[in-house]
Amino acid sequence: MNRNFTSDNVTPACAAVMAAVNAANAGGVPSYGGDELTARLEARVAEVFETTVSVYPVATGTAANALALAQLSPPYGGVYCYEAAHIATDECGAPGFFAGGAVLLGLPAADGKITAAQLATAIEHAHSMGVHHVKPAALSLTQATEWGTVYSCAELAALTAVAEQHGLPVHMDGARFANALESLGCSPAEATWKSGVDVLSLGATKNGALCAEAVVFFDPVLAANFERRRKQSGHLWSKMRFLSSQLLAYLEADVWLANAAQANATAAALAAGLAALPGARLLQCVDANEIFVALPEGVVVGLERLGFGFYRWPAPGLVPAIDGVSIRLVTSYLTTHAEVDGFVLAAAQIASRH
Amino acid sequence: MNRNFTSDNVTPACAAVMAAVNAANAGGVPSYGGDELTARLEARVAEVFETTVSVYPVATGTAANALALAQLSPPYGGVYCYEAAHIATDECGAPGFFAGGAVLLGLPAADGKITAAQLATAIEHAHSMGVHHVKPAALSLTQATEWGTVYSCAELAALTAVAEQHGLPVHMDGARFANALESLGCSPAEATWKSGVDVLSLGATKNGALCAEAVVFFDPVLAANFERRRKQSGHLWSKMRFLSSQLLAYLEADVWLANAAQANATAAALAAGLAALPGARLLQCVDANEIFVALPEGVVVGLERLGFGFYRWPAPGLVPAIDGVSIRLVTSYLTTHAEVDGFVLAAAQIASRH
Amino acid sequence: MNRNFTSDNVTPACAAVMAAVNAANAGGVPSYGGDELTARLEARVAEVFETTVSVYPVATGTAANALALAQLSPPYGGVYCYEAAHIATDECGAPGFFAGGAVLLGLPAADGKITAAQLATAIEHAHSMGVHHVKPAALSLTQATEWGTVYSCAELAALTAVAEQHGLPVHMDGARFANALESLGCSPAEATWKSGVDVLSLGATKNGALCAEAVVFFDPVLAANFERRRKQSGHLWSKMRFLSSQLLAYLEADVWLANAAQANATAAALAAGLAALPGARLLQCVDANEIFVALPEGVVVGLERLGFGFYRWPAPGLVPAIDGVSIRLVTSYLTTHAEVDGFVLAAAQIASRH
Amino acid sequence: MNRNFTSDNVTPACAAVMAAVNAANAGGVPSYGGDELTARLEARVAEVFETTVSVYPVATGTAANALALAQLSPPYGGVYCYEAAHIATDECGAPGFFAGGAVLLGLPAADGKITAAQLATAIEHAHSMGVHHVKPAALSLTQATEWGTVYSCAELAALTAVAEQHGLPVHMDGARFANALESLGCSPAEATWKSGVDVLSLGATKNGALCAEAVVFFDPVLAANFERRRKQSGHLWSKMRFLSSQLLAYLEADVWLANAAQANATAAALAAGLAALPGARLLQCVDANEIFVALPEGVVVGLERLGFGFYRWPAPGLVPAIDGVSIRLVTSYLTTHAEVDGFVLAAAQIASRH
Repeated sequence: MNRNFTSDNVTPACAAVMAAVNAANAGGVPSYGGDELTARLEARVAEVFETTVSVYPVATGTAANALALAQLSPPYGGVYCYEAAHIATDECGAPGFFAGGAVLLGLPAADGKITAAQLATAIEHAHSMGVHHVKPAALSLTQATEWGTVYSCAELAALTAVAEQHGLPVHMDGARFANALESLGCSPAEATWKSGVDVLSLGATKNGALCAEAVVFFDPVLAANFERRRKQSGHLWSKMRFLSSQLLAYLEADVWLANAAQANATAAALAAGLAALPGARLLQCVDANEIFVALPEGVVVGLERLGFGFYRWPAPGLVPAIDGVSIRLVTSYLTTHAEVDGFVLAAAQIASRH
Repeated sequence: MNRNFTSDNVTPACAAVMAAVNAANAGGVPSYGGDELTARLEARVAEVFETTVSVYPVATGTAANALALAQLSPPYGGVYCYEAAHIATDECGAPGFFAGGAVLLGLPAADGKITAAQLATAIEHAHSMGVHHVKPAALSLTQATEWGTVYSCAELAALTAVAEQHGLPVHMDGARFANALESLGCSPAEATWKSGVDVLSLGATKNGALCAEAVVFFDPVLAANFERRRKQSGHLWSKMRFLSSQLLAYLEADVWLANAAQANATAAALAAGLAALPGARLLQCVDANEIFVALPEGVVVGLERLGFGFYRWPAPGLVPAIDGVSIRLVTSYLTTHAEVDGFVLAAAQIASRH
Repeated sequence: MNRNFTSDNVTPACAAVMAAVNAANAGGVPSYGGDELTARLEARVAEVFETTVSVYPVATGTAANALALAQLSPPYGGVYCYEAAHIATDECGAPGFFAGGAVLLGLPAADGKITAAQLATAIEHAHSMGVHHVKPAALSLTQATEWGTVYSCAELAALTAVAEQHGLPVHMDGARFANALESLGCSPAEATWKSGVDVLSLGATKNGALCAEAVVFFDPVLAANFERRRKQSGHLWSKMRFLSSQLLAYLEADVWLANAAQANATAAALAAGLAALPGARLLQCVDANEIFVALPEGVVVGLERLGFGFYRWPAPGLVPAIDGVSIRLVTSYLTTHAEVDGFVLAAAQIASRH
Repeated sequence: MNRNFTSDNVTPACAAVMAAVNAANAGGVPSYGGDELTARLEARVAEVFETTVSVYPVATGTAANALALAQLSPPYGGVYCYEAAHIATDECGAPGFFAGGAVLLGLPAADGKITAAQLATAIEHAHSMGVHHVKPAALSLTQATEWGTVYSCAELAALTAVAEQHGLPVHMDGARFANALESLGCSPAEATWKSGVDVLSLGATKNGALCAEAVVFFDPVLAANFERRRKQSGHLWSKMRFLSSQLLAYLEADVWLANAAQANATAAALAAGLAALPGARLLQCVDANEIFVALPEGVVVGLERLGFGFYRWPAPGLVPAIDGVSIRLVTSYLTTHAEVDGFVLAAAQIASRH
């Protein structure tokens, strides 16, 4: 029984994806994306999102995000985001590197979700500063957020309306997009372009792929020359079919959505189980597959001693001071309810001893 | 009588600097810094700072700062600074552009002065994040700060000790270095390398020059290849003597120090005069030549109507809420006590009418 | 029977590599290269090259080359290479992008192999230009070359001696390193660091892998902070084991060397067969697995009509004018002697008809 | 009597320019280009070029060129130019740095003038390479060229027509634009936008200014956001009037055109005098103010011993082998016919002794 709740990136690729990769291993195939699987992928993404798209598979989320942002922002531009967004804190400065100096303009939030009002104020400030301030260039939203919460479509629409009013295109970091979609219960189209999103980093690696993300442009005009950005940064594969095949397999409903549903359901169960423990406090809404919870220190230590995997994780800056120790737990498409029950039971037993 | 307190960059060049520029206008002079004046400048800076230096004149403060930081930080590096430092808010992303993607890691402060403890905590956090976080690469301190305050030598030493412990070189943005030096009353050496500073952007433009700053390296090893950075960014002048001559003239004690003394003294007088007004509150220590003061709205409006020049300037984020309107006033080497008295008198008259 | 001689990148991954990828698909594995397979890879590369190494797997040759060059050259640096090297003509400016502006300084050659004398002259010219010229920063050699030739160890040693004399580290673009090694008949160590190479882009994708290259530093000091370059450019995989497993499987002697031997042997046979045709002329020595040959136009057209795959490929600039049409043929680890015979026979039959 | 013919950048600023700089030294002037002189400059340039323009003064030619090219080319773009253009050989990689990796695509020429046919062929080659080649992004022409020749308006029109056909904007490096204009005898408009030029680096430093060049956009759309590029690269002066005043004074007809006329006339006289010497051969047409001439070695040595200043300068690669030593001589707005006569006489006397 798996006791590792550290991240959804410690998972293997799921069976459907591995089968597709093996099936793609034919010879004599045109290289650099000229193959049939890559063509089918673009058609499939268009079908899933119910609109014309330009799709660029890459191997990592950092590549997807940074390439997308470089497409949206000039070197003298600024990208608005949550101040502790993954692009700002976990990608080693990739957006600035890809965009030749562009700056991330972080906005604070207790739950990882910035607001339309914050964005409007920040843009106005920038305009008041003139040429000394980087040019407001884009908005980037993480969905699901770094704190496991999910923007509603209404929240997205409010934010993207402000962006549009100021001519800023909108990027969505969807490393856990399937989890967010499952949580929202809406269509992929509603969760993205119908809510004002222009470019999506569509993650698959955390939810069943081996190494596959796709940069999806809902406005082909925005994608102009993007293929050269990808090539110049070393992200164009000669044997592209190995990337495209993963994404094709992934985007079957019984793969990406089913995988996300399993991760979300076990997260909800885990959250509920932990919240019922004495001295426990959920620190964020568990909208997707991440749980941030404060537990009594003895419980945390006890779980660590039993070999359960999770991270001690400081609560976000704006959350009121907490008792106990704040930890992060992440479920995945492979997490079972039995594993969840095992974790909660162990925590309860330790708690009862204190 | 001058009523413009908006900035010290609206001043003309002082007589000594203009005389030097005119005197430098000979022909047949070796280009690109091979001239005698440029050689003399390096010797003069060494004399002023009592140590071996490498000196690179450039025309703007943004160039000086960004070139210096690019020399200290790789593209995957982070530069610690006050979160609203000039390099972070007023240079249109120059540090990231020059350093190929490097990131500014802003730390909060109510008075523009970050602390050694903040820096230590931030570096430790970076180390805990590993490769996902930019590499801690440098520390940049503004002296005098953006809020008109001045780091004491002890404060500098504490900060630079933390930096040194972690292998981070230290940059000082000295756009108003002469004002800070005058305020500290110590030697240039004590204010810089003896307090752990490795590279200084030595400003002159705001204090009497036409367009001259110097990047001063106190450790020549750190300056390796810097001349190519300057050339590649278009900041190497063919007729370099026109830059060097300004700085040579500026660094006579009766120019740079006398100019700064005049600016500081009139700032102190202006601050004292305003602080005595009913309803007025100084928002920062006036260590150098900038005054941040809250005045009753009627007074501010009245002064504006009379044609006095200054900026409404939001108080720094960490300062408690204020009554009235917060404004910024800047004195310069040309400001006279009569001008200060005129401003204070006008403010008092308006205040008495409310 | 395969008739596609366009490139060795249209091949599938070989059985050993695919088996390793499937075997690596376990769960609960530490991410970002903290896994056991990645650790074993570094040990295996050290064993193969008989020295201490730092090894960084990436998915593409462009990434390997550009990351390596960015590590060796500052933004104001120049990298000497053959003027039509892959890095100069086929990577969409990747070296300049990764290195923040660094320039490739191309040297002409009729056979893709530059000489020590050329390099020495070029460096001397750079020094005579001073700060106006980019700083000579590195030497990059392609092995096997873009024209299918292979530098001898003596040629390498002469070139790298000049580089070392001027303090330039040496990069080798080894997209077809196994083919070159097989051709040289020496050890991997002799072909690289014993001949003065500091960093190798060790290709596998063209010779049996799915998507795997490794940046191999023979001097760990040169690798300082390289992991952050890889991360910042989006080339650090969370599920790194999928890259490492490919390379581990590849570096078994009966995989990489056997694969290369098959490609080289069939190339030699193909070259010999074509050279014997009336009106044919080999344009380059066939040291590895690429053949550049001029054939009568009627023969080329005839082969195209029969569905054989190859590129019409202009002869290098310095080669004397040729009769006929110049084409490129590439064999791979999958090419059989029967396929070669089929091609030669078809060409002979067409030729006999003209 | 001046004996220094090394370059036109060793000259002082001319009297009109220095007078303007001194006159501009008033106080209370809006900073960062908000001043009246800067506004007048744009109007004056519009008048001189008979069209709407956007004008951005900077201090160096490298800044002007590299900023302009960064505006025209994305990081994944290529800029066509003469292979030994100043931007390619003398600016330490500035274009690549400013444009985030963009590449200069050099075309050979014996006289520094590339042709429309060369350009067309090169662009077609790029298109045949697809995503692996940088995107053809711009054309840059130097006028007068690095070899002292001048493109005729017909030559310009032919080149820019090819560029326009492929959607490439055209930059002109006019470090010696006044000399070229004087040589052409046409209007500034005819020499630029009427011949298809979109952006001009209008040089003044070599022809009488202290430190002033202007980036002139003839199509304001192309100038979008250029002010942030200038700011981000540290080329926006706070006391901009000191730059603008130079350019305003310079653009009086009796300054820039008269200065250029003097330089050109003395160059023509010098060329004629030298060409008449036994064993001398002019290597290039002397269209502007640079002379490339081969003289017997004894004459060159003799002139050097007499203290005349000039550079030994290798003839361009495509010029047939020469006897003697190739040198470069540059005249300036200050060169007198007496100085020219002195040089020729000295050369003749030395020659007569051999």
